[in-house]
Amino acid sequence: MNRTHDPELKSWVESANSPHSDFPIQNLPFGVFSRSDDSERRVGVAIGDQILDVRAALDAKLLSESTAAASCRGGTLNALMSLARKEISALRGELSALLSGESRAGAVLYPMRDATLHVPADIGDYTDFYASIHHATNVGRMFRPDSPLLPNYKHVPIGYHGRASSIVASGEGVRRPHGQTKAADAAAPRFGPSAMLDYECELGFYVGAGNAIGNPIHIDDAADHIFGFSLVNDWSARDIQSWEYQPLGPFLAKNFATTVSPWVVTSEAVEPYRTRGAPRAEDDPEPLEYLRSAADGDRGGIAASLEVLIASARMRQEGITPMRLSRGSFAGMYWTVAQMLTHHASNGCNLRSGDLLASGTVSNESPESRGCLLELTARGAHPVTLPSGEVRRFLEDGDEIIMKGVLEAERRPRIGFGECRGTILPAHS
Amino acid sequence: MNRTHDPELKSWVESANSPHSDFPIQNLPFGVFSRSDDSERRVGVAIGDQILDVRAALDAKLLSESTAAASCRGGTLNALMSLARKEISALRGELSALLSGESRAGAVLYPMRDATLHVPADIGDYTDFYASIHHATNVGRMFRPDSPLLPNYKHVPIGYHGRASSIVASGEGVRRPHGQTKAADAAAPRFGPSAMLDYECELGFYVGAGNAIGNPIHIDDAADHIFGFSLVNDWSARDIQSWEYQPLGPFLAKNFATTVSPWVVTSEAVEPYRTRGAPRAEDDPEPLEYLRSAADGDRGGIAASLEVLIASARMRQEGITPMRLSRGSFAGMYWTVAQMLTHHASNGCNLRSGDLLASGTVSNESPESRGCLLELTARGAHPVTLPSGEVRRFLEDGDEIIMKGVLEAERRPRIGFGECRGTILPAHS
Repeated sequence: MNRTHDPELKSWVESANSPHSDFPIQNLPFGVFSRSDDSERRVGVAIGDQILDVRAALDAKLLSESTAAASCRGGTLNALMSLARKEISALRGELSALLSGESRAGAVLYPMRDATLHVPADIGDYTDFYASIHHATNVGRMFRPDSPLLPNYKHVPIGYHGRASSIVASGEGVRRPHGQTKAADAAAPRFGPSAMLDYECELGFYVGAGNAIGNPIHIDDAADHIFGFSLVNDWSARDIQSWEYQPLGPFLAKNFATTVSPWVVTSEAVEPYRTRGAPRAEDDPEPLEYLRSAADGDRGGIAASLEVLIASARMRQEGITPMRLSRGSFAGMYWTVAQMLTHHASNGCNLRSGDLLASGTVSNESPESRGCLLELTARGAHPVTLPSGEVRRFLEDGDEIIMKGVLEAERRPRIGFGECRGTILPAHS
Repeated sequence: MNRTHDPELKSWVESANSPHSDFPIQNLPFGVFSRSDDSERRVGVAIGDQILDVRAALDAKLLSESTAAASCRGGTLNALMSLARKEISALRGELSALLSGESRAGAVLYPMRDATLHVPADIGDYTDFYASIHHATNVGRMFRPDSPLLPNYKHVPIGYHGRASSIVASGEGVRRPHGQTKAADAAAPRFGPSAMLDYECELGFYVGAGNAIGNPIHIDDAADHIFGFSLVNDWSARDIQSWEYQPLGPFLAKNFATTVSPWVVTSEAVEPYRTRGAPRAEDDPEPLEYLRSAADGDRGGIAASLEVLIASARMRQEGITPMRLSRGSFAGMYWTVAQMLTHHASNGCNLRSGDLLASGTVSNESPESRGCLLELTARGAHPVTLPSGEVRRFLEDGDEIIMKGVLEAERRPRIGFGECRGTILPAHS
């Protein structure tokens, strides 16, 4: 019996039973890792502070040779992602039984602290949305004081294509970009290192089964096309962005790097943490029919809370623990993930297994929830003071940004996304 | 001796010596094809109306087993594209000698008319620029009558990320997309088939050797990173575009399909058709230093002329030859391909072998040169009459768009890009 949703289930991997672990047996996220003694990429499943090596478990006959398990023999999650949800569910059932059962499988575990964690999929295309109305309004006010929220926002789940090549794994350094910027009072632009480097805290989701070109995805089928979720840091150079973004949108302000957390929490694991779909105010328009679904309205939301922490170089030197910058809930987003995915394919655009979609910055109404410095400091007008006494309007070299996220529901263990980390490297001279 | 640039050289493939052939021996573009009796994808070289099968030539010992030749054993051009220019040049020299020499190699030729031509590379990322100032001004006037050309245009080679998944080969049908549109006088948007479907005639170029993330590409090195050129049709739904494009740029208006011509004309073959770089008016600003190069100013332009033809379903039924809609020169673009590539990598964005960059619509000053219907018909105000008596404001179902392009220089044979074709399929009901 598949007990993956049983809130009482415990693992014999003791660290998984800690209330502080992101990876109890109810989670079982997939990722790609390599061992310190071998650069080969392997598909793994996080359990407490350990990684279960799926291929090793197959070779040791601890798992049955199902299509789903066999698809984990490669070095990316793409093959697994392409499968039907019931096949993935059956594999999760086996993994759950293995990690909670009588027989121990210690030999196929590897300590997470010794592993290198990689971008989990070959990401064919990366799309970034703009699904927080609070973020859109706050940012819009700075770029367009006269019309912060554009007339299309409440009808169109606004998105744009990002850069797939520069998606990097958590922990990789991020080089401060050069770019063109123009001060409001300058006669001409200049080229140099960005002075307004920012992060954006987002929820990402990976495409499971794809769709053929020309064929849209009905909103009631959207969930079948979402493999799972992770954290995304959409690094942004605000000074480059404000000069370049018209009329075709952000380009070099964003495509120098995007960091993803390594573990992909499956749609099945997220299921118990579903909540009401995107809330609407009384006078908000109904979404157009292709974006409307009773099921999505009831359970399209996700009770995830995402937080952002910062540790400057000096804080790390002085042993000061990272400081929280913000904490926001994904449940308040204006568009659900199903609406974003359905909109994306509504013109027949083909999504492929392993494609990454991200929500855009997760910000709620409260100031403490604002998921980027542009909002948090009001474009530098209200700097943040760090525990080291330093102040931040935007990111300085050596700053490390750490994103975390958890899913919470009553009478259930908390499950987490793990971390999405990145440190700013100085610009090339 | 490498005689690939010798204008007098002839091939024993007779059709290559016709002045009407796009593929004389001076061209030798690479592509990927499959035979009618075998679905395997093979790297080929166009010569007249034939394709030389590179792997078959290797197996027959007609080519030496160089790194470049061996890189053609796969089913895409990516491995070949990643090599240094001198390695590709050496292979072209051997191919030229083989196809002009004494010994005939008929057995490794395959008739182009019997072949299926494919997208030539695994395109990791696709980026579209906006490098014609005439196109930007004409289109800008329609979307923003008060500020047709934005203040950044003469400083920034404006570009945005397109969709890699929906790039299709010449000849594949293009499904009319559904999408949200909103008439100026409507209270709310509606969802349905686009009524303003358009093409955009562009020059595309494929990345050769890539760059590591964080490391820009100097403008004097840009040419070393460009493998070659082809035609691109960036299909566009204008009614979807005008409603969705603010603030993050075009998305569903473009990503339903992009058609590429199958043959990639190498940078080496283009070399003799280089011309002055982007012309500037007296009062235009100098480009910023990172986009400036004496060599690029002298030889950064490309003497390519691109034309667009249309054949409606009725025209095809009645045996009427396709009608030319426009003909424009690439030499008049405001930004050179080197400037586009250098700008793209200027923030450290990593380009990978096989990535596709495209110029944006190629339009010159004259009305006959306008490379999309939006410009040509002034958003439908001045419809085009076809020889069948039909009129077109935008594309109708069954319309076939055919793009062609040639490179011309004095005392040299004309070389061509081949064709980029696509026919509009009716929207799904």
